Amino acid sequence: ITVMPMFNQMGLIGCGLMGGSLALALKQAGLVRSVVGFSQSPSSSAKALALGVIDQQALAAGEVAKGSDLIVLAMPVAATANTLALLKPQLEAHTLIVDLGSTKESVVQAAEQALAEKASQFVGCHPMAGAEKSGVEHAYAQLYARCQVLITPAPSSQPERLAQARQLWEALGCKVVSLSPTDHDRALAKVSHLPHLLAFAFINGLLGKADSSLALALAGTGFKDFSRIAASEPHMWRDILLANREPILN
Amino acid sequence: ITVMPMFNQMGLIGCGLMGGSLALALKQAGLVRSVVGFSQSPSSSAKALALGVIDQQALAAGEVAKGSDLIVLAMPVAATANTLALLKPQLEAHTLIVDLGSTKESVVQAAEQALAEKASQFVGCHPMAGAEKSGVEHAYAQLYARCQVLITPAPSSQPERLAQARQLWEALGCKVVSLSPTDHDRALAKVSHLPHLLAFAFINGLLGKADSSLALALAGTGFKDFSRIAASEPHMWRDILLANREPILN
Repeated sequence: ITVMPMFNQMGLIGCGLMGGSLALALKQAGLVRSVVGFSQSPSSSAKALALGVIDQQALAAGEVAKGSDLIVLAMPVAATANTLALLKPQLEAHTLIVDLGSTKESVVQAAEQALAEKASQFVGCHPMAGAEKSGVEHAYAQLYARCQVLITPAPSSQPERLAQARQLWEALGCKVVSLSPTDHDRALAKVSHLPHLLAFAFINGLLGKADSSLALALAGTGFKDFSRIAASEPHMWRDILLANREPILN
Repeated sequence: ITVMPMFNQMGLIGCGLMGGSLALALKQAGLVRSVVGFSQSPSSSAKALALGVIDQQALAAGEVAKGSDLIVLAMPVAATANTLALLKPQLEAHTLIVDLGSTKESVVQAAEQALAEKASQFVGCHPMAGAEKSGVEHAYAQLYARCQVLITPAPSSQPERLAQARQLWEALGCKVVSLSPTDHDRALAKVSHLPHLLAFAFINGLLGKADSSLALALAGTGFKDFSRIAASEPHMWRDILLANREPILN
């Protein structure tokens, strides 16, 4: 049996836990042959290369576009517009771009503007795979197994691109749900972003108290749930909370 | 080998998950021979009797004192003063009373006032055993295994009573820590009561929204932690939050 990759080369922007795990999963499933990866911090992509998560290190985001049949954006959502603008010049016409961001309205708008006539190549995706640890050293292929993936069609979306993105996730065993970016952001504000904000604020307030050491020694399960959530990656969550400000405040 | 019970008869006020589990644990460990139980709702004590958690049903709180060598208060903390006043007339001089409440300053004060010259028989205890389910039907002997128990000495406390309470918990495999009621309440406000309050408020707010059904369908792990906490027994937590109002607001 010969396994035919859906994508010969995958370009990865952001070599962290989420992107690294997807690279591992797609290679393991035979859907991607090799991965070229870029990270804002070259030490992250170097680590990803050393660990075999990516196969080639790109030192500029734009380089990733060349020769990639699939591009995955796995960096904080606020960098979407700039990143796509850097990718656009060398973006090939057949290439599919997906992101993994936890907010979708600002991401989809950024894609429409940055990619302009190429915007239909972008499909906003939000795989709801939870992980408090960050960094490519914690990446593992099973992170997305059986997770729910939300796909958010934009005005420029074309059915065949949406189907291609859906097929990608389903091949990894994910359950795909399609909804508008606005509905996505309102729903996630309620069940994910607000609880994270509360947990961050709570732990931050607690650690700022001078007399918190006795309290911490007595912490039970209710506290552990909060501290687990509050240990989520701060830069990613800063961007999520800013990008989805209005629905969260609502 | 003959196992000598530390307490021939245990009186239980409140036949729910916490009290029922302690009755099962103490009987299983051979520390208590039989249990007479009272519940505000007679259907709860009847259920506890039918399940073998208690061995005799009392239809008035005061009845529990007669012949009991150990009395365990396992009802919401706001009922402490009234309950102890009902127990006092028939309370025997050798009897040890402990409670399981999650706040301690108001409980210890209630005991000092309600028991007066018998106050040294009371030792405030807070076993930090977490369980979201409530009701005697969920009681199980292992609930307290390896849990941390906070013992809060009062002005009237006598060393031998404190030692007896400590011995009781240690016999069940618990780790005992002693601290003042005030320190207890301040610490627990930080690491337990406030996170519970946040989780209750969050889930309550979410369920009050007309358009929460889509959001709930997309709920991930962050939400599940909050909803797990918010499923805690409401009457118990109403009392805790009222009793520890000032430290929580602080």
